Amino acid sequence: MSKSQFKCLVDQQKKSGSIGIVGLGLIGGSLGLELQSLGWKIHGLVHRSTTLERAKERGLANLVSTNPEILRDCEVVFIALPLDKILHPTDQLINSLPPNAVVTDVGSVKSPIVQTWQKLHPRFIGSHPMAGTTEAGVNAGRLGLFHQRPWVATPNSKTDIAAIEIIRDISTSIGSKWITTNAKQHDEAVALISHLPVFISAALLKTLGNVENQTIKDLAKVLASSGFADTSRVGGGNPSLGRAMVENNSTEILKALSAYRRSLEKVEETILSKSWDQVEKDLEDTKILRASFIKRKEIT
Amino acid sequence: MSKSQFKCLVDQQKKSGSIGIVGLGLIGGSLGLELQSLGWKIHGLVHRSTTLERAKERGLANLVSTNPEILRDCEVVFIALPLDKILHPTDQLINSLPPNAVVTDVGSVKSPIVQTWQKLHPRFIGSHPMAGTTEAGVNAGRLGLFHQRPWVATPNSKTDIAAIEIIRDISTSIGSKWITTNAKQHDEAVALISHLPVFISAALLKTLGNVENQTIKDLAKVLASSGFADTSRVGGGNPSLGRAMVENNSTEILKALSAYRRSLEKVEETILSKSWDQVEKDLEDTKILRASFIKRKEIT
Repeated sequence: MSKSQFKCLVDQQKKSGSIGIVGLGLIGGSLGLELQSLGWKIHGLVHRSTTLERAKERGLANLVSTNPEILRDCEVVFIALPLDKILHPTDQLINSLPPNAVVTDVGSVKSPIVQTWQKLHPRFIGSHPMAGTTEAGVNAGRLGLFHQRPWVATPNSKTDIAAIEIIRDISTSIGSKWITTNAKQHDEAVALISHLPVFISAALLKTLGNVENQTIKDLAKVLASSGFADTSRVGGGNPSLGRAMVENNSTEILKALSAYRRSLEKVEETILSKSWDQVEKDLEDTKILRASFIKRKEIT
Repeated sequence: MSKSQFKCLVDQQKKSGSIGIVGLGLIGGSLGLELQSLGWKIHGLVHRSTTLERAKERGLANLVSTNPEILRDCEVVFIALPLDKILHPTDQLINSLPPNAVVTDVGSVKSPIVQTWQKLHPRFIGSHPMAGTTEAGVNAGRLGLFHQRPWVATPNSKTDIAAIEIIRDISTSIGSKWITTNAKQHDEAVALISHLPVFISAALLKTLGNVENQTIKDLAKVLASSGFADTSRVGGGNPSLGRAMVENNSTEILKALSAYRRSLEKVEETILSKSWDQVEKDLEDTKILRASFIKRKEIT
């Protein structure tokens, strides 16, 4: 399908166009709800029959099946599986993808996905939405998840240009802000902004877990307030997602951890030298820095 | 005033009893609103005339003044100032405190406060609520702030027993959960659960601030999501409060930072050795740990 043919579908005949979604969890289910509301016919592929029943009850797709054949007539397919499953697709899934369909994924580490999938499908484009909640699974999908959130694509010289534009049009139609970058830069940036927080937050929890004096530990539990809850949130998140991040982006995560360790050593040095004015100045800097990173976003 | 006399006041004649609050910011203002709703007459002492006007408009106290004489007839006085001001009270403030009043504070580091104030007033008891928001100042106080939150007191052998019970009765009457411990244990626990998060969160912000590659930095800004927002929240908080914490609890904070650094090194080692199963297991542990620290609280 050419870009102009697709545009025609988008603008005039959405009801006849089908989009396949593999996996109807938080991202896949939310996509299903959004795209149906815009008139697309959604074909959902799920793994388990219990998920199939619940996905039907929730109306996450027009058709739901555990048989990959359901993807046969789709013009676009979103692989909305967990990172490790995106990287290790079944032969049955690969064989069921129409060769002329545009295929994209939703995985948060792009270099290994692009490397794997460009060999598997001629119209693959690596992309993913930066949208998440602590929920997961077939009950998690909801309308509005992508609103005003970035949708990042990582095309390269081999990527089909029409495929890029199709995914851009779909993502912006559901409220996302379209961004393109290369896979390596993407993975370096997410290591810093998304993966690093998971591990420094987990290390905080581990530190509290390692406290040997039971009185202090019990007291700390009683005194834990919103500051601890916020700082420990992502370190107490999904273990298999954390594993998949680090397994597939370990080089960048180690670089980020190493830079972080140097920042932390500076903090310790400043306190050790009793440079209280400097402590205050550093916290003034970080206050301004934070505002520059979460400016104009709904995530304050 | 004896304990039984005070009880009588609490139970039957609240309208004739006066409580002084020094400082009408988040904690002082919230206390003023809560205690007035229970029938107490509140005398608020503020530093600036602009604060006085706003405190009156908001009804944070029955009487508000910039003159410490307003504390003259109070049976109980809460020193609801920032930590550094609690530790360095003016002579005028000290002289205006009635010798038979019960005096307590709201500072989050207890050892230096108890050491200072037990010399200044015969009926001082160190205490503070574990309740906070990111807001501060005369507009921040609100009803409900203390509901179900701990109120920690750190009496010692020199503390007037009747004074302890009076502060306990007041704090529980506004919905707080009363806890007593010794000042040193308190300061060790808050270093871990409250002060450490500030500095590890600040180090995260600093790490992002130090990124030299502008493309990566800009991309990280665009991609910053709720995980980064949560983990960086307390590191982008109040710089003077952070300084006061560390200036007055540096020994415990350095111990906490050192324990944290060891936890972080373990994380790095696990990733460096590509022990992905271990990464996942560690994250399963931290997920369980987090639940045990924020169990049954309104701070998930």
